[in-house]
Amino acid sequence: MVFNVLTIFPDMFEGILRNSILKRAIERELIKVNLVNIRDYSKDKHKKTDDYPYGGGYGMVMMVQPIYDAIKAVKSSKDMPVFYMGPKGKKFDQKKAIELSKYDEIMILCGHYEGIDERAYSLIDEEISIGDFILTGGEIAAMAVIDSVSRLIHGVLPQDESFIDESFYCGLLEYPQYTRPEIFNGMEVPKVLLSGNHAEIAKWRRQKSLEATLNLRPDLLDRKYLSEQDIEYLKELGYSDI
Amino acid sequence: MVFNVLTIFPDMFEGILRNSILKRAIERELIKVNLVNIRDYSKDKHKKTDDYPYGGGYGMVMMVQPIYDAIKAVKSSKDMPVFYMGPKGKKFDQKKAIELSKYDEIMILCGHYEGIDERAYSLIDEEISIGDFILTGGEIAAMAVIDSVSRLIHGVLPQDESFIDESFYCGLLEYPQYTRPEIFNGMEVPKVLLSGNHAEIAKWRRQKSLEATLNLRPDLLDRKYLSEQDIEYLKELGYSDI
Repeated sequence: MVFNVLTIFPDMFEGILRNSILKRAIERELIKVNLVNIRDYSKDKHKKTDDYPYGGGYGMVMMVQPIYDAIKAVKSSKDMPVFYMGPKGKKFDQKKAIELSKYDEIMILCGHYEGIDERAYSLIDEEISIGDFILTGGEIAAMAVIDSVSRLIHGVLPQDESFIDESFYCGLLEYPQYTRPEIFNGMEVPKVLLSGNHAEIAKWRRQKSLEATLNLRPDLLDRKYLSEQDIEYLKELGYSDI
Repeated sequence: MVFNVLTIFPDMFEGILRNSILKRAIERELIKVNLVNIRDYSKDKHKKTDDYPYGGGYGMVMMVQPIYDAIKAVKSSKDMPVFYMGPKGKKFDQKKAIELSKYDEIMILCGHYEGIDERAYSLIDEEISIGDFILTGGEIAAMAVIDSVSRLIHGVLPQDESFIDESFYCGLLEYPQYTRPEIFNGMEVPKVLLSGNHAEIAKWRRQKSLEATLNLRPDLLDRKYLSEQDIEYLKELGYSDI
């Protein structure tokens, strides 16, 4: 999968592309991140990409011309959807990550300053937001999208199964995890995990997932993903609203 | 404000700390980002920080010992709240960013792999999540927190007023922005913005903000932040649920 990222700060991405899962995915040519510097497309003699807002107000606005020409240039070889990381967008979630992972190639536009000239929206297919908080630019949001989408591409994770039991994938929060040592500062690993009894371990983990979800994110509980046994256990925990 | 970031991938942060607003804030000593490599605190002879989960299952779990010792070492000089970027956390939003911006110093723990040993939670004050999607580690989420919190610190933005009219700050989405040229590919800047009539411009912008919020994020509309005039206009737009 190819991610074409349009930004005025391509350097920002170096750190995350040179480490961990993304580094390996790039080396093994499972993903490609094509960093396009919007500045290179500015027709201004000083390669300017922003200017004062019409009508006044604080801050600078990203000019439409460099964005427009950058998008057109990347699209000249292949058509693909253009996503804009912006605060007005639809909330990015795991469902959206799965949707994006099905494309061979996408474009991600990162805004900056007080936003982009409204006319740039004429080339944007969808605006995506990662949350209700203000970021300086779309770059960190784009990193979150690239990371979560890449993980869903076959071969990117060490084992394909590895993402299956993670939070939000099955609509439940993850169960507690423990690794060595067995006792740390007086804190012990739950006995069941050392028992070797796989059925008991699976049951304990499922129940801990249900408990965590009920306590922290009851909004995620969805009958569609719950077995009769799950519902039975939730009722034992005092949850009747299912 | 000091951000102590505990991570096994300190390199990942280089890009965002060397560009834009954060770079300037660091140079001007308004913020400091202290990257602590958890690996340096591992007592394992190979400096290992992860191990297989007790009870079996895919993936690796971050060991409690290196995390515990890293937190203790950073805290030895000064007490501060410890936040863990994890999927079970409370959702990070602008309100939370404002809350964090009031601390002089915080610690942010970034997990990786299949999560952290449950016993590490004994040193964590609060788990924070940036959204319902799976990331490889907490690093990108920590960057989002550092960026959004830093922007709220006095002097970090070029003008203190600059963040006031941004999305989510006043509970409304931002109005459309335009900058030069006046006409681009046949698309014109709305006449009112060129009028020089500040009252009319302010009114148009407020109405566009209300429209955008009504269309895209009606959940954000809150009577507390709306004037009588706003409510009048929302009614004109057919919104009666206020």
